[in-house]
Amino acid sequence: MNFKKAAILLMGVFSFCLVRSQGNQNLSITMKAVTVNFTLDENGKPAYDVSYGNKRVIRPSYMGFVLSDLDPLDAGFVLLGSERNSHDETWDPVWGEVHSIRDHYEQLTVHLKQKSSNRLLDIIFRAFEDGVGFRYYFPKQAALKYFIVTDEETQFSLTGDHKVFWIPGDYDTNEYPYTTSAISGVDNKNMVDNSTAIAVRIAPDRYAVQTPLMMKSADGLYINIHEAALVNYPAMQLHVDRATYKLTSSLVPDAFGNKAYLHAPFATPWRTIIVSDNAADILSSRIILNLNEPNCIGDTSWIKPMKFVGVWWEMQTGKSGWNYSDYPDSTDAAGKLIPNHHHGANTVNVKRYIDFAAANGIPAVLVEGWDKGWEDWFGNWKENVFDFVTPYPDFDVQGLQTYAASKGVQLIMHNETSGSATNYERQMDTAFRFMINHGYHAVKTGYVGRIIPRGEHHDGQWMVNHYQRVAEKAAYYHVMLDAHEPVRPTGLQRTYPNWMACEAARGNEYNAFSKGNAPEHETILPFTRLMGGPMDYTPGIFKLTHYSSDTSRRIHTTLAKQLALYITIYSPVQMVADLPENYESHMDAFQFIRDVPVDWDDTKILAAEPGDYVAIARKQKGSDNWFIGVITDEHKRDMSADLSFLDKGKKYIATVYGDAENADWQQNPEAYTIKKITVDRTSHLLLRLASGGGAAVSIMPIKSAAAR
Amino acid sequence: MNFKKAAILLMGVFSFCLVRSQGNQNLSITMKAVTVNFTLDENGKPAYDVSYGNKRVIRPSYMGFVLSDLDPLDAGFVLLGSERNSHDETWDPVWGEVHSIRDHYEQLTVHLKQKSSNRLLDIIFRAFEDGVGFRYYFPKQAALKYFIVTDEETQFSLTGDHKVFWIPGDYDTNEYPYTTSAISGVDNKNMVDNSTAIAVRIAPDRYAVQTPLMMKSADGLYINIHEAALVNYPAMQLHVDRATYKLTSSLVPDAFGNKAYLHAPFATPWRTIIVSDNAADILSSRIILNLNEPNCIGDTSWIKPMKFVGVWWEMQTGKSGWNYSDYPDSTDAAGKLIPNHHHGANTVNVKRYIDFAAANGIPAVLVEGWDKGWEDWFGNWKENVFDFVTPYPDFDVQGLQTYAASKGVQLIMHNETSGSATNYERQMDTAFRFMINHGYHAVKTGYVGRIIPRGEHHDGQWMVNHYQRVAEKAAYYHVMLDAHEPVRPTGLQRTYPNWMACEAARGNEYNAFSKGNAPEHETILPFTRLMGGPMDYTPGIFKLTHYSSDTSRRIHTTLAKQLALYITIYSPVQMVADLPENYESHMDAFQFIRDVPVDWDDTKILAAEPGDYVAIARKQKGSDNWFIGVITDEHKRDMSADLSFLDKGKKYIATVYGDAENADWQQNPEAYTIKKITVDRTSHLLLRLASGGGAAVSIMPIKSAAAR
Repeated sequence: MNFKKAAILLMGVFSFCLVRSQGNQNLSITMKAVTVNFTLDENGKPAYDVSYGNKRVIRPSYMGFVLSDLDPLDAGFVLLGSERNSHDETWDPVWGEVHSIRDHYEQLTVHLKQKSSNRLLDIIFRAFEDGVGFRYYFPKQAALKYFIVTDEETQFSLTGDHKVFWIPGDYDTNEYPYTTSAISGVDNKNMVDNSTAIAVRIAPDRYAVQTPLMMKSADGLYINIHEAALVNYPAMQLHVDRATYKLTSSLVPDAFGNKAYLHAPFATPWRTIIVSDNAADILSSRIILNLNEPNCIGDTSWIKPMKFVGVWWEMQTGKSGWNYSDYPDSTDAAGKLIPNHHHGANTVNVKRYIDFAAANGIPAVLVEGWDKGWEDWFGNWKENVFDFVTPYPDFDVQGLQTYAASKGVQLIMHNETSGSATNYERQMDTAFRFMINHGYHAVKTGYVGRIIPRGEHHDGQWMVNHYQRVAEKAAYYHVMLDAHEPVRPTGLQRTYPNWMACEAARGNEYNAFSKGNAPEHETILPFTRLMGGPMDYTPGIFKLTHYSSDTSRRIHTTLAKQLALYITIYSPVQMVADLPENYESHMDAFQFIRDVPVDWDDTKILAAEPGDYVAIARKQKGSDNWFIGVITDEHKRDMSADLSFLDKGKKYIATVYGDAENADWQQNPEAYTIKKITVDRTSHLLLRLASGGGAAVSIMPIKSAAAR
Repeated sequence: MNFKKAAILLMGVFSFCLVRSQGNQNLSITMKAVTVNFTLDENGKPAYDVSYGNKRVIRPSYMGFVLSDLDPLDAGFVLLGSERNSHDETWDPVWGEVHSIRDHYEQLTVHLKQKSSNRLLDIIFRAFEDGVGFRYYFPKQAALKYFIVTDEETQFSLTGDHKVFWIPGDYDTNEYPYTTSAISGVDNKNMVDNSTAIAVRIAPDRYAVQTPLMMKSADGLYINIHEAALVNYPAMQLHVDRATYKLTSSLVPDAFGNKAYLHAPFATPWRTIIVSDNAADILSSRIILNLNEPNCIGDTSWIKPMKFVGVWWEMQTGKSGWNYSDYPDSTDAAGKLIPNHHHGANTVNVKRYIDFAAANGIPAVLVEGWDKGWEDWFGNWKENVFDFVTPYPDFDVQGLQTYAASKGVQLIMHNETSGSATNYERQMDTAFRFMINHGYHAVKTGYVGRIIPRGEHHDGQWMVNHYQRVAEKAAYYHVMLDAHEPVRPTGLQRTYPNWMACEAARGNEYNAFSKGNAPEHETILPFTRLMGGPMDYTPGIFKLTHYSSDTSRRIHTTLAKQLALYITIYSPVQMVADLPENYESHMDAFQFIRDVPVDWDDTKILAAEPGDYVAIARKQKGSDNWFIGVITDEHKRDMSADLSFLDKGKKYIATVYGDAENADWQQNPEAYTIKKITVDRTSHLLLRLASGGGAAVSIMPIKSAAAR
């Protein structure tokens, strides 16, 4: 390396020569079909490109930053040196889709120095067999200590006018339906303007989209762009140049338009590009988990993936309400709230859910609306709504704790912040102490409303840090976390395994209070939102029409598809979302929900095409049972599931919960059939999916007489 | 009243008539010389005026609000009714300048309704013998629930181009020197631009000034405008119309330019106008305390006014530092900070201060720089600087707790937030638990730096609420609070008697790190900043030159004036600010500091003229001792103190700590004389004040042989 150092010194002296010689500097790494190549152009501007086999995925794309009160950090660089190394390791997640994960990559680190400012910037690239990750690293240095990022200039220059599955680049929500268009057709304005069912929508750039962004090229490449390990940094959105197909990172700002307040040394989140010529590979990719740090919370023995029922869908559908009184001012002479007798979270009703859970082996019951404040909880940008510890008069905290424990069921806490993170942070220790003192070991948080601190956004740096603080606080108290309306996940569930799931997308609930989710919605989610981590989608609705006083509302699936979602949407916490009484009239179909687990030893993507269909098989953790979920969009479809993943020589009973012959999400959604078939690894299951339909299959080994 | 109601109904029907008839509606209240008069003009715009005897103080001035997303609430009103009542009550403060306070006023409440919107607004006026207070009240009503104030339009139309003592209307600081000019000469731009010693300066309106605003009219009226009971609302500044002498309220905004997020019912702070033809009456006024709510924290037996020394001035002057290492990155191989051996808050040094306090009857020692973070605490808008519980390695928390207790001295905690209120709120419970576990019963807080939440200001609604939350938390833990760099006080020390003092003005410290405070500074403070409440000014500097490595630095007073400040600047917590070694060479003068108390049964303003001189006598609480402080500006001055307030028939020893014959703040500041004289109520003390000088007098009864 001495020669190289001397050469760099020489170049420092003869800088004119240097500028030209840089044109030749390029460095690349390859893992199987994936190659990422780094260059410094004639102006010392760093750039990278990515190819997959002989196909270009990303054309040369610039990288860098604009900083507040400093010169941009995006040109005039020289290469001080570089390192390569190979990595091949296998690790076991605390829970997940597979028992163990291989983390295999080639790494290239380039050390850059901006000549004019002496500022240092490293870029670290990793090539995996299914894609690329790269991050920026600001080393500890005299020339850059504290700094403010006003723009990150990372480009993703695509090779053509790909088909793209997108939602608007909104600073505060990911709850839009997906639009499928060409890149040249991206324009979110109408979608933003018309999505009135979303509480807070702030999307100033009509050509910005969210990640994970899923694309398909004309030449058959599937490309997914997202980020991993979003820590102390705002979420990355992508600004779309519709003419050149160049995407540019667009970070969520604060009140001043600043993006990130940083202090070197600092590593940005990883920017990820997952690529394959097979859509199923996108869903199998573990790049995002691999790019996150290992578990940092120590002991995880207390973390238990689980299904849960909840006092929730009855509020979504209007059978009951979150609020105990009609108005905050509905108080009697003594200042007590006057009940509206429509309050769902009352002790008697909660006991009914506990009984149902206990009777059906469901470990937990979520109760929303138990705490004072719901008369007036949202929409007024009000800072102090909930105190997270004061129940309504008809919710007996102590009595329910005792009753649930006697039934072997646990209660899940609900902490709605209405977007007032400052209030939640003030109360958080008190709230978590309340939980552990009353037997709650999981919490669902919520952030419906404009954020306080006013000027911050759901997806900005401050709130990204907030969600992490909540995860850390929950870990400290041994509480599992399911965050609703947070920033979309980026694989941090590896680092915080108690952070079980997020919402951060358009869930099943939109079928209750809006026109709903199109049948294709759940076929896109795995390729987009779910790339970052588990989603609490709340599947399992059995009563698919006439559940709401607004009879135009309907679930946009068949009943069998609702079952299949337990497989196609991975989450270690899965809600059994419908009302007990709606399950009780279909206990044969409900058997699938009783059986399906939420933690897996293995996962096989049998078939997948974004926007069309998804078929996944998963093997239950610590068991020989397999489960298959297959879903389709609005098109009926026959699919054949190859069962060659089953153990050699073993016979199984496959129970197929499928759409009835005449089922159809619009005309006859609740028609299903249940068939039992003996299968083995040579079998192919033919699954006939209705329009908006699906199929769910449990495959359990036939226990031999000897084994009994 | 029935007739009136009928008339209003009639007016409602014939609204054209109504508008004209309103011109006649006026209502007034009078208390001695003070009259306040309310009118609705022909457009239904509310207005008031104030007179003092036959002199006009405030010409008719409009009132009202601009609201976000709603029509303004400033015109088109009708009078629904009004009420008057008289109030005469005497109450005893927990501590203060006097033993008991009379609250005597006439009150007028006007009930207004805006015809077009049906919104209700009340205005409540109180006339005291020394001024006026008024506030707005938004009643609970259907037509106005949640709302956002974007402007308060309260006017104070003055009668002429008064002389005014002002500092710039800055959103983040009150630490400017005062400018004396005509109203027509107000322009803060140069002052703001040049005040580089102030860390954060944001003053976008060059014609805005802070309150308390002190004025003197050509016809001899002294007028002071401020506010009382600033709760859940931003601080009021005043925009100056230099041509018409009309001042208009200008509230400190948030990131969106919004001023206050409110929910009816809501009462604004009181706007106060104190007026007299005698300047001394301004300093005697108790209007601001009277307009605050009584003590709300319950038991106050644990609240003890006190003097304190501190490891502080040695950092201000460069003898030592707050920081343990030179840089945050100065760590050894094990990651431990490398000491710079210049750290003031080390155990040995703190013990020296404890010893000094114990030897001189000073109850407490403040220690700044004890906790990790000072290498890098300020100026980077960094959110997580201090954790408020982790000491530097050379500060032995437990050992000092034991040592201080053994000496009968208590330690005062220091919590510097560097403006990161979000971080402090997260840690606050932990911080206060740490205090009570380690024997700290008082805390000095600090807010040096730009505020986080970013977009908020020191004096905006969010931070006003923050300071109150800190006071409440401190009260909960039985901790006394001394807040530095908060919003300036508005009499809330009545409601939170543990909120002993604030800085919120330009303290003595500016003599250490800037050109300093002009000799007139302390003669203006009582008429401005101190109107709202006690200030931790940190008087008592004895070494007046050559205390800093920058030899151009100097204290802009004589030594005797430093003593007098203990009387002229009232605070229940008074720092004995200089270093022990500087006192040890002047123990005869230090005797005054040993003797002077911080809590009083009575106060007499002997003479005062803002910008020129202040002379005050105070009677020690529960004692017959009196103390006098007299200060002058840059002009030498002879003052005669009439001692007729002394008890009849009693003889006293007066110890006069005065400027020496040849003393002068510039040439010979440390020259003082101490004389003892026997006095009684017929005596007059002639006090000769040097340029920048003062005199301090203790007057103690001669104990009779019988009493011995």
